[in-house]
Amino acid sequence: MFLTKSPTRFFTRISIAAVAMAAVFAPALAHAEEVEYLTQSNGNILWTLIAAILVMLMQAGFGCVEAGFTRAKSAGNIMMKNFLDFSVGSICFFLFGFAVMFGLDAGGFTGTSGFALGGVAEADLPWTYTFWFFQSVFAATAATIVSGGMAERTKFSSYIIVSIVVTGLIYPLSGHWAWGSLWLGDDGAGWLEGLGFCDFAGSSVVHSLGGWLALAGAMVLGPRIGKYTEDGKANAIPGHNIPLAGLGVFLLWFGWFGFNPGSTTTADNTIGFIAMNTSLAAAGGVLGSMVISWFRFGKPDISMTMNGALAGLVGITAGCATVSPGSSIVIGTVAGILVVLSIEFIDKVLKIDDPVGASSVHGVCGAWGTIACGLFNTDGGLLFGGGFGQLGVQLLGVGIFFAWGFGGGFVLMTVIKALFGLRVSKEEELKGLDIAEHGSESYNGFQLFSNE
Amino acid sequence: MFLTKSPTRFFTRISIAAVAMAAVFAPALAHAEEVEYLTQSNGNILWTLIAAILVMLMQAGFGCVEAGFTRAKSAGNIMMKNFLDFSVGSICFFLFGFAVMFGLDAGGFTGTSGFALGGVAEADLPWTYTFWFFQSVFAATAATIVSGGMAERTKFSSYIIVSIVVTGLIYPLSGHWAWGSLWLGDDGAGWLEGLGFCDFAGSSVVHSLGGWLALAGAMVLGPRIGKYTEDGKANAIPGHNIPLAGLGVFLLWFGWFGFNPGSTTTADNTIGFIAMNTSLAAAGGVLGSMVISWFRFGKPDISMTMNGALAGLVGITAGCATVSPGSSIVIGTVAGILVVLSIEFIDKVLKIDDPVGASSVHGVCGAWGTIACGLFNTDGGLLFGGGFGQLGVQLLGVGIFFAWGFGGGFVLMTVIKALFGLRVSKEEELKGLDIAEHGSESYNGFQLFSNE
Amino acid sequence: MFLTKSPTRFFTRISIAAVAMAAVFAPALAHAEEVEYLTQSNGNILWTLIAAILVMLMQAGFGCVEAGFTRAKSAGNIMMKNFLDFSVGSICFFLFGFAVMFGLDAGGFTGTSGFALGGVAEADLPWTYTFWFFQSVFAATAATIVSGGMAERTKFSSYIIVSIVVTGLIYPLSGHWAWGSLWLGDDGAGWLEGLGFCDFAGSSVVHSLGGWLALAGAMVLGPRIGKYTEDGKANAIPGHNIPLAGLGVFLLWFGWFGFNPGSTTTADNTIGFIAMNTSLAAAGGVLGSMVISWFRFGKPDISMTMNGALAGLVGITAGCATVSPGSSIVIGTVAGILVVLSIEFIDKVLKIDDPVGASSVHGVCGAWGTIACGLFNTDGGLLFGGGFGQLGVQLLGVGIFFAWGFGGGFVLMTVIKALFGLRVSKEEELKGLDIAEHGSESYNGFQLFSNE
Repeated sequence: MFLTKSPTRFFTRISIAAVAMAAVFAPALAHAEEVEYLTQSNGNILWTLIAAILVMLMQAGFGCVEAGFTRAKSAGNIMMKNFLDFSVGSICFFLFGFAVMFGLDAGGFTGTSGFALGGVAEADLPWTYTFWFFQSVFAATAATIVSGGMAERTKFSSYIIVSIVVTGLIYPLSGHWAWGSLWLGDDGAGWLEGLGFCDFAGSSVVHSLGGWLALAGAMVLGPRIGKYTEDGKANAIPGHNIPLAGLGVFLLWFGWFGFNPGSTTTADNTIGFIAMNTSLAAAGGVLGSMVISWFRFGKPDISMTMNGALAGLVGITAGCATVSPGSSIVIGTVAGILVVLSIEFIDKVLKIDDPVGASSVHGVCGAWGTIACGLFNTDGGLLFGGGFGQLGVQLLGVGIFFAWGFGGGFVLMTVIKALFGLRVSKEEELKGLDIAEHGSESYNGFQLFSNE
Repeated sequence: MFLTKSPTRFFTRISIAAVAMAAVFAPALAHAEEVEYLTQSNGNILWTLIAAILVMLMQAGFGCVEAGFTRAKSAGNIMMKNFLDFSVGSICFFLFGFAVMFGLDAGGFTGTSGFALGGVAEADLPWTYTFWFFQSVFAATAATIVSGGMAERTKFSSYIIVSIVVTGLIYPLSGHWAWGSLWLGDDGAGWLEGLGFCDFAGSSVVHSLGGWLALAGAMVLGPRIGKYTEDGKANAIPGHNIPLAGLGVFLLWFGWFGFNPGSTTTADNTIGFIAMNTSLAAAGGVLGSMVISWFRFGKPDISMTMNGALAGLVGITAGCATVSPGSSIVIGTVAGILVVLSIEFIDKVLKIDDPVGASSVHGVCGAWGTIACGLFNTDGGLLFGGGFGQLGVQLLGVGIFFAWGFGGGFVLMTVIKALFGLRVSKEEELKGLDIAEHGSESYNGFQLFSNE
Repeated sequence: MFLTKSPTRFFTRISIAAVAMAAVFAPALAHAEEVEYLTQSNGNILWTLIAAILVMLMQAGFGCVEAGFTRAKSAGNIMMKNFLDFSVGSICFFLFGFAVMFGLDAGGFTGTSGFALGGVAEADLPWTYTFWFFQSVFAATAATIVSGGMAERTKFSSYIIVSIVVTGLIYPLSGHWAWGSLWLGDDGAGWLEGLGFCDFAGSSVVHSLGGWLALAGAMVLGPRIGKYTEDGKANAIPGHNIPLAGLGVFLLWFGWFGFNPGSTTTADNTIGFIAMNTSLAAAGGVLGSMVISWFRFGKPDISMTMNGALAGLVGITAGCATVSPGSSIVIGTVAGILVVLSIEFIDKVLKIDDPVGASSVHGVCGAWGTIACGLFNTDGGLLFGGGFGQLGVQLLGVGIFFAWGFGGGFVLMTVIKALFGLRVSKEEELKGLDIAEHGSESYNGFQLFSNE
């Protein structure tokens, strides 16, 4: 009961039935005025729209987090990338992304219909528009994750290409594999979906994919100037505005209550349950990160703790509708611990400079959340007596999304690098991307240290 | 079907019908418990309330955008004006604005009933309260737009009078002309409305009006000290906090999903369609502004791009329920281009100092959006085979709102200037309005450059 | 009609009735497709969830207000406390707080069932999950209020204990007295509730309690270094980021439209009325504070005006469903005046250093709002012909919440102080809590004055 995600459609049925009911009730209502009730289909549109609006605000959250965790001299550039991602993303997802992801299935591999929402039956249009909007903000979320890992050194013009390819092709294609049948329910399932892959709201489909793309981008770009000493020691490059980042995390958390419960796309009675699980996992993530950073660094670290909230949220995204509240706390806490270890590992061992930890928060914790379905699902999870079946499918999915996200991202970034260059010049980087790429500063009137 | 805006009312009908139905069903339900369904009227209240709450947050968005795009020394003052606008606006709109705008019509010119919501039938109260709240946040939006154009030099005490007159009289009166019948549907239409004027959510009613008032205010005030050199060259006075402005734009964008889809004031199946159009137009606006600024300035300009998002949103506000998704992209893109050209024209040719571009974003793009209905409406637009009829009415409306907003604003500002003074002294302006008008600074502890 | 707060439950009834109705309609619908309507119970879940999400964002609002009104050197620490409050709060409220507050009543004093939501009937689960989430964000709000009064000098590790005890015990216990029957309606009322105590959305239950706890904390901690001169004169320690604080106030205002109207926990037709009252009271609060600060200080004070909005909101929280719109304006305006007088009284006469005025905004104005029910309730208020009965109960409640909040808080803080220490060292305080407690700075790259 808590697992259903397919939207119910009743658009064609309403007017006919209303006439029929009026006829039946006519005698009884002779002296009474007519009552109208809100149809379930309109209720579903209402809820899905509201959820989409909440998710849309996650763009602001990402902007604040990414700007806050990086330096003042490139803060406007990060904001620009978020505006770009959402705008390019919306239009690409309208023109072809949506069709690739949700159109009539071809071999479990890709969708093939609904380009620019063409060819949709009249009766399906109201739902389609709403569902498109909900899915478009998901696509933009995946794209925006990438900008964080590539912060402070990426050429803006080249980033536009990244944004187009991600929202128009990379994201929708793998999205089809896992969610292909969600639009109208009768247009064919993707191959992973067919295997029973569990990813209710997108730990893999959205977050891991975005995180692995960010990792590939950060790797192809190379570290920011000054990030590593000549003997390979990692320098911390602290963020310039922690309250802004904190606000951003809260905005993301807020938007996540559209992201997860909204993925029912139905105004049913499970949405409160999903919200509770989401909330508890985020709480666990905060506490997990805070405690582990306290142990490792001797003090509870602020940016790690903030990332812990996001880690918990990413971690519960796959299983939010299928695990228990207690499991949600565990999943979130583990994600909060994992994100700290992963950020250190990528930074110090792999020596890949991911300025905001996007690959750890979204890639690693997204993978963890996907695996967690195989462990904690009350119906099918290993720890709940379900055997290894679900877990196997989940591990397969994790591998697929890593291969596609990191591999595809690596190829994409390498090709762009070869054709147009991916990185600004050394002078531009030192000056900061705000001046170099946009000709303006973010904090006019404030005295900043010269080398920041 | 997508055009309906009138709220359906069923408050009086529910209890009677419920009793009747209970009688009919009694045998069939003998062994079953009763099911209750959410009435459409309560669903409409639910959606309209949620939409109003989203629009309310646009006050925060305006505060952040206006503060971010101006100087640090007056940032608190801009915030104060936003608090004032919303507060004065709510109370004036409660006492008389709502009655003027939506009360019983007199000659198509003004409403005449509902002062302090008095004289409303018991059965109409729940809807009236909800509708009042929704409309009150619209009124406050119109008022808040004005503060942007008058930033950094307006006397706070005089601004209070502007705020009262705008929300209590100027906005509601022209609002009546275009939307007078929306409250209960049987209280008479305004004269523009009677001609078939199309402005679904207020490109003209809210935005153009606010923008033209801002233009009048900026003109009567004169430019900020240092804005123009002695030989008339315009100096750029850059904003002090671009991430804050970017966050503000995202908050406005978020609130717009209440503004436009919420203007159905009905939980029907068109709200997803309207949201999609709104989203696509904003995306078009971002890309339009980014590209045109890139061409003109050699780099993609950050504040222009952010204004482009707002331009696209303002542009689609009139036609969001009546144009196609493809047209929405076009309307938004044109608005994004227009806003850049208009900001330059007003700044450099007209030499009017509008610090945040309020007259371009809201005035010019609001006018464009209103005209766009006459071109792109699928039912009646010139480009969709509808002839010049709708377009003519739209052009008339654009002219009326310009004459009323700019003309009325000019008179109002000139009278206030003569009676009380509209501008602070030169010393106060140089010191900044935070210290001069409120005795405090916005950024204690930060080192600011002395002349900012 | 406007007073009902008990949630209706229909979960068990739906499926049976649906079957029954299908049988009845079968002939009439022979040629028609079936229509489904949104059940009232799912509508209630939808609205309560959305309201909870809005309230959740108040955490961001508190974070911004508290950070903005204090100094740059401890801004990250304030944000940390907000993350901690929400996270610890959610988990404590899940494990035992909810059971204490809403479980099966024992003597009107405490709840006794529902620990970790165990033992809930299957049919009640969907509503329970939703209601839990709604109530968990209320609990976190109460906790977060406390952090403001204790800003800039509290030991982080000791604060964790405060947070646990508040959300797990202090808040839920007194909450039970006033709201104990709200969960399922048949689990027994708290003793204050039984007397007819009126506090619709928590002027006392949430705000006064939080405010009095903050007062106790500020008192046991003692003032920040430099706050009072040797001869006892109070120095102003101005906030470091007023636009951030202003944004925070708007976010709180926004969230309040979930807090108050959402306290119906029912998608009924009263929610618009409650939102209107909430909006008008906030407007009154802004104007009240602005005018009184203008009189007292010669200029309209920015932070007082912002606190005035919050004062108005706190003031209307108890009576938002039971007073008229006109009374709402009066209640808000009085709250706005009160908060300015109270802040000065606590700061200058009592010489208690409450950095953000939490005890005045939430404690004093919460008490005022609770009393206001006894004066202005249209059914039972003294000024509306209701005699002294309701007023007496309200005064009793105000006293109880003061005694419990301030008294309990004083004991709690004193015990923690004795066992672990409540305050950081002098050196740590001077350095700022960001560096001292977390090892990082909030504004890297910005030049700050050395002693801030």
